Amino acid sequence: MIRIRPYQPDDWYGLWAILEPVFRAGETYAVPRDISEQDAHRLWIELPRAVRVAVDDEGRITGSYALKPNQPGPGDHVANCGYMVAENARGQGIAGEMCDHSLTLARQLGFVAMQYNLVVESNETAIRLWQQHGFEIIGTLPRAFRHSVLGPVDAHVMYRLL
Amino acid sequence: MIRIRPYQPDDWYGLWAILEPVFRAGETYAVPRDISEQDAHRLWIELPRAVRVAVDDEGRITGSYALKPNQPGPGDHVANCGYMVAENARGQGIAGEMCDHSLTLARQLGFVAMQYNLVVESNETAIRLWQQHGFEIIGTLPRAFRHSVLGPVDAHVMYRLL
Repeated sequence: MIRIRPYQPDDWYGLWAILEPVFRAGETYAVPRDISEQDAHRLWIELPRAVRVAVDDEGRITGSYALKPNQPGPGDHVANCGYMVAENARGQGIAGEMCDHSLTLARQLGFVAMQYNLVVESNETAIRLWQQHGFEIIGTLPRAFRHSVLGPVDAHVMYRLL
Repeated sequence: MIRIRPYQPDDWYGLWAILEPVFRAGETYAVPRDISEQDAHRLWIELPRAVRVAVDDEGRITGSYALKPNQPGPGDHVANCGYMVAENARGQGIAGEMCDHSLTLARQLGFVAMQYNLVVESNETAIRLWQQHGFEIIGTLPRAFRHSVLGPVDAHVMYRLL
């Protein structure tokens, strides 16, 4: 059973343990690989409009998403969302559950579309999942991401109306 | 004659007189229409990697561009640039000159591509100009911009390698 609930300050320790290895790996997020814990807290907790965590039966955090306007002013009706799943909790459908949850929450918050700015082309699992959730590849940015293993790779802009 | 030179703190008064009406109009930039002067200073002067101003024969500021990485970390080799031309100085080729200048500067700073995230579809003059400078429409975001007069309009993601 996956439960998704609002983030609480006590969750940070468990959440950072999920975020850190993903940022350090440098394979999926346009975030400095050496980002400090403080900057990661600002990025994932302080700046977004809403943060949720996924927890398992024993209350352990297995994932999180952070939702915010993708642009300010006349672009702030389009949401952006980042998702993270703990490495030892992959393949359980958590990302898909969080995606559905974030789409519902985005609608509730008044957003009318959702945009992912940089979906790394080598992240095929994510691309397929977002497509299953109604996102389209709007376009592809040549060599827009420096993958830590693969080098420069293309990245997609993905988008859907809500 | 158009001259383009680095921004100096003394330029702010003249530059804000150019930026303010464009932000207030809400027709082209994803910036809050009621942005404060202080926030605009942060956006255009403090956050970017480099800021240049265009000046006329009498030293009056007629335009400006602000260049920065479009994403942090593994995306920071792609530049982003914003351009402004004074309303009373349009049609003189200033935007094109600044675009050329910014592409050269971006290369000098080590960027390998340039991306415009939200080129409002109704801003046909800009789209044509960027295309003339080697940018392609990578994709189009449905209704991603709330134009102050036209309502929700599509916006293009434009991109070129350097």
